[in-house]
Amino acid sequence: MVSYIGTRELQKHLQQARPETAISRMAEMIREDYLRWSQFDKTPRVASHSEVGVIELMPISDGTHYSFKYVNGHPKNTHAGLLTVTAFGVLADVDTGYPRLLSELTLTTALRTAATSALAARYMARPDSRSMALIGNGAQSEFQAIAFHTMLGINEIRLFDVDPAATEKLIRNLSSRYPSLRLIRAASTAEAVRGADIVTTVTADKTNATILTPDMIEPGMHINGVGGDCPGKTELHADILHQAFVVVEYEPQSRIEGEVQQMPADFPVTEFWRIVNGSVAARQSAAQVTVFDSVGFALEDFSAMRYLEKFVLHRDTPMLDLIPEMMDPKDLFGMGMADLNISSEKTGIAPAVPIHA
Amino acid sequence: MVSYIGTRELQKHLQQARPETAISRMAEMIREDYLRWSQFDKTPRVASHSEVGVIELMPISDGTHYSFKYVNGHPKNTHAGLLTVTAFGVLADVDTGYPRLLSELTLTTALRTAATSALAARYMARPDSRSMALIGNGAQSEFQAIAFHTMLGINEIRLFDVDPAATEKLIRNLSSRYPSLRLIRAASTAEAVRGADIVTTVTADKTNATILTPDMIEPGMHINGVGGDCPGKTELHADILHQAFVVVEYEPQSRIEGEVQQMPADFPVTEFWRIVNGSVAARQSAAQVTVFDSVGFALEDFSAMRYLEKFVLHRDTPMLDLIPEMMDPKDLFGMGMADLNISSEKTGIAPAVPIHA
Repeated sequence: MVSYIGTRELQKHLQQARPETAISRMAEMIREDYLRWSQFDKTPRVASHSEVGVIELMPISDGTHYSFKYVNGHPKNTHAGLLTVTAFGVLADVDTGYPRLLSELTLTTALRTAATSALAARYMARPDSRSMALIGNGAQSEFQAIAFHTMLGINEIRLFDVDPAATEKLIRNLSSRYPSLRLIRAASTAEAVRGADIVTTVTADKTNATILTPDMIEPGMHINGVGGDCPGKTELHADILHQAFVVVEYEPQSRIEGEVQQMPADFPVTEFWRIVNGSVAARQSAAQVTVFDSVGFALEDFSAMRYLEKFVLHRDTPMLDLIPEMMDPKDLFGMGMADLNISSEKTGIAPAVPIHA
Repeated sequence: MVSYIGTRELQKHLQQARPETAISRMAEMIREDYLRWSQFDKTPRVASHSEVGVIELMPISDGTHYSFKYVNGHPKNTHAGLLTVTAFGVLADVDTGYPRLLSELTLTTALRTAATSALAARYMARPDSRSMALIGNGAQSEFQAIAFHTMLGINEIRLFDVDPAATEKLIRNLSSRYPSLRLIRAASTAEAVRGADIVTTVTADKTNATILTPDMIEPGMHINGVGGDCPGKTELHADILHQAFVVVEYEPQSRIEGEVQQMPADFPVTEFWRIVNGSVAARQSAAQVTVFDSVGFALEDFSAMRYLEKFVLHRDTPMLDLIPEMMDPKDLFGMGMADLNISSEKTGIAPAVPIHA
């Protein structure tokens, strides 16, 4: 039987544990996994593109556990009342190949992306950072706001979205819940960015959108570029990258999907694990512009599923009969044809366990 | 909500529909999909190897639907009472990226592999074939026997396995259920193969095992090589391939995983879709030796999941809350934090539907 964490199960957990605790704990597990980078069998994600979006599989293994995430990206889905990004995933045992956990990863991806962003900013942003511009106020934005508020002490966030209703939704969701966080509506990206210590872009258009232009960038800013995450989908003007210290998660994937897809193949980038283990300094001066060119890497989902297994699973977590359980593993046919109404002792088949919500 | 077909659901279906009907129907859907080969976005499977086995992801899309299968191969699992091969998969909509069906694919893989084998043999074996040697009597063997009995009229099967208990299990499972099928125990592979029209090898060792040697092969034989399906795992002596007409499913994958991994890169192979659409003749003479070097291709799982959706789903199929359902797709946070006890009208969130067995 495979443990199952659905949307409702994660909702219950988030409300009990609080999102800021979940994000902080997840960030710590992501940090632990980046510290043992060389143990992971890594591969760029496997994408299937169509005219309207992409479906991707993101496998990874540390030799003990294997995980993969299924994730789609369909910017026009919102017009049909559907999510731009949905995801689910599986954690499995390498020794047997058996899956152990199937989980929703839509909410979880928002949590782990925010956790990764804030973790990177903790290394890369100026320590005195207190204000952030948040460009794009869609499905992921609240999680980014909470992560930076909780993990970096950001207490002022300037909001901009081409859709004002998205900004209103963010304010409605966060204002009473996080009273120490000042939320400011801006009339444009430029206005939101002006004077901010950190700039987070989390827009969804599947185009080379140039959300940020070089004239907006001030010395010492840290840019957390989250929305540009597949071929043909970027948010930053190339000249911003030319003048910045650019960190990516996994270079072979980021060259294809990240902001650096705009740059020549020899454009220098630093992989994030080198920042985490201290072998490369994340920031050389207070005036340096830093960019975390984040596309989301399988390792972060691996960490997130470790989190789910550790903190969300409980005695009554639903189980799925996704994999047969048999006394004689060579007798698949006998299992398939066994009388479903007779006892397991007679058939050697484990009794079907009811799936419960 | 995502439809869910677990082991028990498929057991119920198999017992109602009968395995031979399921295999025949699945073979027809596999044939339909091989006939539109060029419509598919194809890729070799993505493998994660360890010392004891492999975990693979097998994605494919026809532009309307996308599917992937998760499948492991762990030959030593049987010693721990676990299956060598387990699998599950998802069928999704390309337009939205949303999954529509999550299904067990362990039993289903055995059905679709047998369906593919018999479909290939219908083109490749001599039309007067009546006897088959079945080498390897493990989890997949009964399905192969049923497929060849039903789809080709094979009425005599000579059985050999290094584990006599596996052979006894096959006979126990099939003898009363298929009285018109003659099942014969052989003392060795050579004895089983002698005089057979078709030879099916479906052994599980993760080694270059050389189950069949050139001296066993007689003119006109069709060899259905099923067990050799990953790097370092083959069943046929290279000289058998040198003298045969060799058909593979998807050349880029088979060069890595199939029997032809032993051969030079320019060793001639024919892709199966060319046989199905008639552009290449499957057999030039009654004396020709033919080999279906089968490793299992994602297209066959795509067809199998089309089958499951068409023939197994029903009004009361369980549903999983794997993907959030929301009125405002930009309000993922609001969904995550919504009061789980208040009505969907107030929150704009679809009510959680209980998961039932």
